[in-house]
Amino acid sequence: MAKTKKIAVIGFGNIGTGVVRLLYEKGIPGLELVRVVDTDIKRKRPVEIPSSYLSTDWRQTVADPKIDIVVELIGGIEPARSILSEALKQGKDVVTANKKLLAKEGESIFKQVADSHRRIGFRAAFVGAHSLIHELGLAGTGAKEFKRIHAILNGTSNYILSSMTSEGMSFEQALRGAQAKGFAEADPSDDIDGRDTESKIRILLALISNSYRSAGAFPVEGVRDMAPQDIQYAGELGYSVKLVGVIEQNDSIFDVAVHPALVPKMSLLGSLEGAYNGTELEDEYGTISGLVAPGAGAYPTADAVVKDLLDITEGRTMPMPSSAAAITLGAIDAVRRRYYLRFSVLDQAGVLARITDIFWKHNISIAAVIQKEAVSEDFVPVVITTHLAKEGDLQAAIAQVDNLEVVKAKTRIIRILSGEA
Amino acid sequence: MAKTKKIAVIGFGNIGTGVVRLLYEKGIPGLELVRVVDTDIKRKRPVEIPSSYLSTDWRQTVADPKIDIVVELIGGIEPARSILSEALKQGKDVVTANKKLLAKEGESIFKQVADSHRRIGFRAAFVGAHSLIHELGLAGTGAKEFKRIHAILNGTSNYILSSMTSEGMSFEQALRGAQAKGFAEADPSDDIDGRDTESKIRILLALISNSYRSAGAFPVEGVRDMAPQDIQYAGELGYSVKLVGVIEQNDSIFDVAVHPALVPKMSLLGSLEGAYNGTELEDEYGTISGLVAPGAGAYPTADAVVKDLLDITEGRTMPMPSSAAAITLGAIDAVRRRYYLRFSVLDQAGVLARITDIFWKHNISIAAVIQKEAVSEDFVPVVITTHLAKEGDLQAAIAQVDNLEVVKAKTRIIRILSGEA
Repeated sequence: MAKTKKIAVIGFGNIGTGVVRLLYEKGIPGLELVRVVDTDIKRKRPVEIPSSYLSTDWRQTVADPKIDIVVELIGGIEPARSILSEALKQGKDVVTANKKLLAKEGESIFKQVADSHRRIGFRAAFVGAHSLIHELGLAGTGAKEFKRIHAILNGTSNYILSSMTSEGMSFEQALRGAQAKGFAEADPSDDIDGRDTESKIRILLALISNSYRSAGAFPVEGVRDMAPQDIQYAGELGYSVKLVGVIEQNDSIFDVAVHPALVPKMSLLGSLEGAYNGTELEDEYGTISGLVAPGAGAYPTADAVVKDLLDITEGRTMPMPSSAAAITLGAIDAVRRRYYLRFSVLDQAGVLARITDIFWKHNISIAAVIQKEAVSEDFVPVVITTHLAKEGDLQAAIAQVDNLEVVKAKTRIIRILSGEA
Repeated sequence: MAKTKKIAVIGFGNIGTGVVRLLYEKGIPGLELVRVVDTDIKRKRPVEIPSSYLSTDWRQTVADPKIDIVVELIGGIEPARSILSEALKQGKDVVTANKKLLAKEGESIFKQVADSHRRIGFRAAFVGAHSLIHELGLAGTGAKEFKRIHAILNGTSNYILSSMTSEGMSFEQALRGAQAKGFAEADPSDDIDGRDTESKIRILLALISNSYRSAGAFPVEGVRDMAPQDIQYAGELGYSVKLVGVIEQNDSIFDVAVHPALVPKMSLLGSLEGAYNGTELEDEYGTISGLVAPGAGAYPTADAVVKDLLDITEGRTMPMPSSAAAITLGAIDAVRRRYYLRFSVLDQAGVLARITDIFWKHNISIAAVIQKEAVSEDFVPVVITTHLAKEGDLQAAIAQVDNLEVVKAKTRIIRILSGEA
């Protein structure tokens, strides 16, 4: 067993409390908690530690030569950024759960880690996929390349979509239910607008490409506009609707996006219900593996922090993007996908023929159609799924369709992911 | 980067070829292949290595002081057992893919590793769950306890059950199809009779309990008797039929078994199709995580071997059961499960009442019933699912039911696993 490392935890909120519980109450061989920093050290926490451990001064803590590893759990950009930076300058290793910070400032943080020959652990930044770190870590060694990640990385959105599916709720009802049960925050916009997934996908992209260089913008769409009827039609077609992050690599060009998607029900991602995260990974040999894990929560996050601390203590090489090479994103229009489309059309003869004619002219072939008898409204929904089509062709075709006078509302477009495993 | 390690691979079959490809053709920093041993070194393999690397003499190879790590890939008990033992005696670390050997002789092998302060890598012995090794490794540190593993660990059986489900095939048809496609061996008995799953479960039990002491016998049942009608009824009730390995721990008492089970379709295990393996793990905090991965194949197995080699080269502590404490298995009769039961009864009034009466007297309550109108036969199937019941009560009740003169055949009993995730 390696020498015991002395640990400072900065941020004594839910996750900090979880880490303190594991390190102080339970006790992990090789890890010694020596300092806990928070702006509020008066408030009672569900774990008792001697007041001599507590401090409000992160600068003094980070400068303390007896501390080996600094754990940053305060979230946000500042002072989290400065805490990591100062700790590294002082020759310490760092562990963080801050996905927003790494997604935004990863380039400078990873560069500083590399230049200072220190180590960083950031499993806790995407708890739900952290075992992947171990797999992805090999990417940097050149031992392995990854072709594809399809992942559900936001527990809040998945909980909401699961409720909409199982209870037939509207988005608003499902969101309120999630908030009541603690699965969604008062301001849920980062989660439901896809930005949380985007942050995690940016970190995974850095690992997969082995580059910490900031990648350009890619499409990000959330679940706020999800309609119960699309979830129902998807179900009739054998699909679940999920908010997915997608990275696909071909010849070092990366197609990256975050959006709702139809996923086969009987698949790892399609069968994933509630606040869980799921990840499907395909390597260069076509081997597919998958992972399901809680995407959040004080305990799973604290557990991920402790795993990083143990890896650092054991002297293990920590997975980290190690080059500054530019990351090339593919042209969005060229991506080939299958699509679910819901048209709102007048209930009259020849409408379907006009749509299929436009599709034919744009090289789009139809896989399935659902058109039910009209009940009372003067327009009816027509649902079509396509075979593989180029995003550019699809968008051009839909622009034409939406201009038809028989089309009464903007066509709803949802991508279809046909992942295996 | 640590010092480069010199590797000898013993066994130049499919998996050996995969490992040689990665180490020699592709090249992995830190790992240098220096020797490949096989009884047949004349036969052409799909990878070219200089003939100076080849040897037929494992004893000389294992005694060679320049070799750091010996990889055993010949399978079977002897000489695999002696190869590992001699290599450890010579102060070398070892890596093996031999699940049968570890399940049978794990006690003496792990003891020798511990006593000689060497390291062993055996991820490749259960490829489909090897990422779990990293998680389970923490069990030994006392950082974490696991409450439950539910796993599909045999790709052949899962492929056969998937074919029976999707194509409505008989077991024999599905087996022949699996053999034709290379998913089942000419003699598939280890796979379809549950013994392969048993070996993997024994290794996982050793890891979870942190003891290499041989555990006693536990129930092992395969899929050879699986009838298409049970798969169909299970489907109507919302379940897939899977061959599962189960370990459940309460207060250090382990309930362990291998058997077919009904698993909810919309779950990690229930949605797993084809030759994949899947594992669901619950820790002491109730956190559930899951893993899906190919259960076999030259490349995934070779990849697992290389991961072990890298971990050893990096000086990482290798997960291994480290005590010789006795493993206490729970009494089989006391295990509480839900059950699927198919009765073959005369199509006459009062039969269901007589069965439910026997159930009531044995504390078994009924969750669902399927009884369809009789077509032409003089007996009809009645399918019942139960709420949680003790195995002992259930078996006693079924013994009584099967003695009724209105019951025409032995009742089919399949356990129901209601796993989450």
